[in-house]
Amino acid sequence: METAPEDAGEASSARVAVIGLGSMGKGMASSLLRAGFDVCGVDVSEAAVAQLEALGGRAATTPAEATSQAPVVISVVVNAEQTETVLFGEHGVAETMLPDAVFVSCATMAPEVARTLAARLESSGRLFVDAPVSGGAARAASGELTILASGSPQAIDRARTALDAMAATVHELGNEAGIAAAFKMINQLLAGVHIAAACEAITLAARQNLDLRKVYEVITASAGNSWMFENRVPHILDNDYTPLSAVDIFVKDLGIIQSMARDYRFPVPLAAAALQMYLAASGSGMGKDDDSSLAKVYAHLSATSLTGG
Amino acid sequence: METAPEDAGEASSARVAVIGLGSMGKGMASSLLRAGFDVCGVDVSEAAVAQLEALGGRAATTPAEATSQAPVVISVVVNAEQTETVLFGEHGVAETMLPDAVFVSCATMAPEVARTLAARLESSGRLFVDAPVSGGAARAASGELTILASGSPQAIDRARTALDAMAATVHELGNEAGIAAAFKMINQLLAGVHIAAACEAITLAARQNLDLRKVYEVITASAGNSWMFENRVPHILDNDYTPLSAVDIFVKDLGIIQSMARDYRFPVPLAAAALQMYLAASGSGMGKDDDSSLAKVYAHLSATSLTGG
Repeated sequence: METAPEDAGEASSARVAVIGLGSMGKGMASSLLRAGFDVCGVDVSEAAVAQLEALGGRAATTPAEATSQAPVVISVVVNAEQTETVLFGEHGVAETMLPDAVFVSCATMAPEVARTLAARLESSGRLFVDAPVSGGAARAASGELTILASGSPQAIDRARTALDAMAATVHELGNEAGIAAAFKMINQLLAGVHIAAACEAITLAARQNLDLRKVYEVITASAGNSWMFENRVPHILDNDYTPLSAVDIFVKDLGIIQSMARDYRFPVPLAAAALQMYLAASGSGMGKDDDSSLAKVYAHLSATSLTGG
Repeated sequence: METAPEDAGEASSARVAVIGLGSMGKGMASSLLRAGFDVCGVDVSEAAVAQLEALGGRAATTPAEATSQAPVVISVVVNAEQTETVLFGEHGVAETMLPDAVFVSCATMAPEVARTLAARLESSGRLFVDAPVSGGAARAASGELTILASGSPQAIDRARTALDAMAATVHELGNEAGIAAAFKMINQLLAGVHIAAACEAITLAARQNLDLRKVYEVITASAGNSWMFENRVPHILDNDYTPLSAVDIFVKDLGIIQSMARDYRFPVPLAAAALQMYLAASGSGMGKDDDSSLAKVYAHLSATSLTGG
């Protein structure tokens, strides 16, 4: 969705608060600045706030301060617990946001939690958009994220120009919080299983002494391909586990899926098996490494070399 | 790879035997006929043989008869056991093939079994190409299969014009039988896991009352996508389980992977979890149905409707 020129003009004076200036939040803030928004940011890291100022943004020292004049508040923290703290914790924004402001919640969380947070905030008249994002830091910086959005029509409308400034695609998925979170969890189930399957398959190929670059070439042209196989296996072939997305992200997200599915009495044997491998990777010290590190767990458990050694 | 015009001319008088005229073999035979080969086919089904004759092929009543004048023999049977019978069983071809003929084995089987069958045949001077195929019946008929091929350079050369007539792509993977089989098993591990994951995810989405066509649209544009999700989920959305590829194919192929992996002492928790779901589908009467029927197992186990009912 493109922002029409007149919208960009209208938006040029609008304040947006960005809470959380990690790799995603920083990129989203820079996309908002580029689109002409007046961005005020806050983070526990002073260096992150200084970087935002260098880009032309404003600095705040608490979420409450960042949001005090912002009709749109973007929360880019790690999980549901941090989102709850941002809203309802010490110096939280639920009481200090403008009375008709919209809170855009980007963390991946259980649908039920998103619904609960939205209901608590909306009881004060403020608006809530459930807006998990995907695309990674590079696409955050270029304003080309994919945003899954659900919430009341008013909430989505209030957030729209900011969402469009950050995203290549905004999927509008329904008129209440929790729907977008549910879509995101379905994506995370698949993504988490596919990474684990890619690591299982490429290491089994190594165990058979196959040419792994040839395996990559053949599989990416075959019915066994997945977005994650294509994206993650090169990390393994290059022996480069620099974290683009960490093992612990899927410890968290597949953990949420287990809890949801258990509540529903819904068996998820694939997601459950994958979670065990992320737990093994994290438990053996690789929680902060790239999620393709699961291949190293398989390699260790089978005395297999992934580097041809 | 394209067949050069002079090769096609040379091939026009060449006899090729096709053993097994099921949905794949029939299509492959028709592609060979179209390329100018003199095709002689055999199948336990008289109707299948009659169809080949109607297309301009020759009929045989035993594998030995079909292959007696054929420098190239294509075996398109279901599994390793049938391949062994074709070669070494009653009316088998190992002793009756032309002394310098090549046997092209297309069934998916364990690499070790492919190696053993090749060694037994090659001990008589005949040639063997390990050549598992993928692409399905439609691409078999259009001559656009993907063929994974390994074998001695002589064997591959002898089979080449026939392989090119049947395939859009021939991946040459190494100079002995078993390598192509190993590549194929890696593909089947991924494909089998991805189908099960797709069924797990789409049914969990249904359990949450999400709009499943919207889920399909979002996931196929997201990092959770796989070739199999994109291909199989429409069967579920259309409530059409007409078998394009049956549940029992993955009971077989993931079973082979379990055996291989156990021999290697290589844990495959994802493939193992997926196999249990194929076993549940087959055990509950859906073995001959489309492999997307795993969604019905998940739906049954969670009292979920996949059709919005």
